[in-house]
Amino acid sequence: MAIPYPHFIATEKAAMDAGLLLPSSPSLILTQDDLKKIAAYKAVEYVESGMVLGLGTGSTAKHAVDRIGELLRQGKLKDIVGIPTSKITHEQALSLGIPLSDLESHPVVDLAIDGADEVDPFLNLVKGRGGSLLREKMVESACKKFIVIVDESKLVKYLGGSGLAMPVEVIQFCWKFTAEKLRKLFEEAGCVAKLRTFGEKEEPFVTDNGNFIVDLYFERSIGDLKAASEAILQLAGVVEHGMFLDMATTVIVAGELGLTMKNK
Amino acid sequence: MAIPYPHFIATEKAAMDAGLLLPSSPSLILTQDDLKKIAAYKAVEYVESGMVLGLGTGSTAKHAVDRIGELLRQGKLKDIVGIPTSKITHEQALSLGIPLSDLESHPVVDLAIDGADEVDPFLNLVKGRGGSLLREKMVESACKKFIVIVDESKLVKYLGGSGLAMPVEVIQFCWKFTAEKLRKLFEEAGCVAKLRTFGEKEEPFVTDNGNFIVDLYFERSIGDLKAASEAILQLAGVVEHGMFLDMATTVIVAGELGLTMKNK
Repeated sequence: MAIPYPHFIATEKAAMDAGLLLPSSPSLILTQDDLKKIAAYKAVEYVESGMVLGLGTGSTAKHAVDRIGELLRQGKLKDIVGIPTSKITHEQALSLGIPLSDLESHPVVDLAIDGADEVDPFLNLVKGRGGSLLREKMVESACKKFIVIVDESKLVKYLGGSGLAMPVEVIQFCWKFTAEKLRKLFEEAGCVAKLRTFGEKEEPFVTDNGNFIVDLYFERSIGDLKAASEAILQLAGVVEHGMFLDMATTVIVAGELGLTMKNK
Repeated sequence: MAIPYPHFIATEKAAMDAGLLLPSSPSLILTQDDLKKIAAYKAVEYVESGMVLGLGTGSTAKHAVDRIGELLRQGKLKDIVGIPTSKITHEQALSLGIPLSDLESHPVVDLAIDGADEVDPFLNLVKGRGGSLLREKMVESACKKFIVIVDESKLVKYLGGSGLAMPVEVIQFCWKFTAEKLRKLFEEAGCVAKLRTFGEKEEPFVTDNGNFIVDLYFERSIGDLKAASEAILQLAGVVEHGMFLDMATTVIVAGELGLTMKNK
């Protein structure tokens, strides 16, 4: 059940912190980015001094990283160590003065905060439309707690249900062969497989690890997610996929009507 | 049961073809390389004109590729298309004049011939000590028939049983973290995980795909191989491992006492 903003103190505080709600303003019109910011600020309330933090990547996670930097500057948080999930987040955190490390020095992460492209009713996720699914999965697999922050447009009945991409990171060698194997794997779900490209020349997008991304689009549900995950990982050309199954411990959803928290 | 060389016509023919046995010689002392060559020549007897062939990598497979080149030159084979499993085999085949293609043009391979580092009683393999496990697995997963050629020193009771490496290809990013995850996965089997290096300076070995190799050594059996495979592939930093389960259709073993053929 969504908790309406005006009546939920923690959300009101989060919206105020985010600069979106003045104590005197009875109503406000929230953009999608406002909703992302509210969810992000709410998640950062769970950060405590001394924590090792997984820092997510993407437009929603960016707000959380900004907020952590702000609280450090204000002295409200101390002794934080951040583990960035991409080169871009590394740059952002560095510019905010957040002390950084990596999984090799800190193999156990207290809390990670990151966005997601899709969230199903069982808190399974699709991530990686930003292209950094592999590092995100490495960091978020090493977490004690993993808080996912999304606006309500990311909620789906089943993974793939938004009609947007489910990304798979593949090695460059014979990527077309691997893409065709992926398509065939999900033929019954009406799967289409496309190489991710960028720019006018449609050059292949290359990940931080030097691989390509094949985006899968489904017409129908792919069914058993664990079986799908295993089948994808079995393919020799596949490095990793964007389904994050059984990993999120909390999902914070910001919607027009309020914040919703879902716990495992 | 091994078939003694002097009494097994096909083997005698293979040894003669390999230039190791003259019709008049009643006995001969065979080196390990001779045995590899005999197994390789025997396997090439299964090659027919018009086939799309997966060309393996390593000291045993090299003999098979040489033999295919020889039969093409002699006109005994025609219309062969080779799919090499590594850059080095690509070079070798090119120098022998074997017409080459790739999996994208020929997604179905009639027959692959390759060596292995270990073969267990169920024809499961360890491959990749040469470092090209990923491309080998891609090609050999696409085969109708996969003939494995080994000398008898490669036979083991269980995978890992030779005490030599079981390789895992990992992304370079945080490889130590991934290596430690691998070691922990097989802690009960007394696993040791080592980065593969080369040269006096012990620089990391880099695969054809730009990744590192972590070699796993086991003191004891790792038990259920399918479960082990899935657990390894689940780790986000892992690209592929060197266990080839349920893939070989025939194994040809050359030993001091003769050739043995094992079929699935």
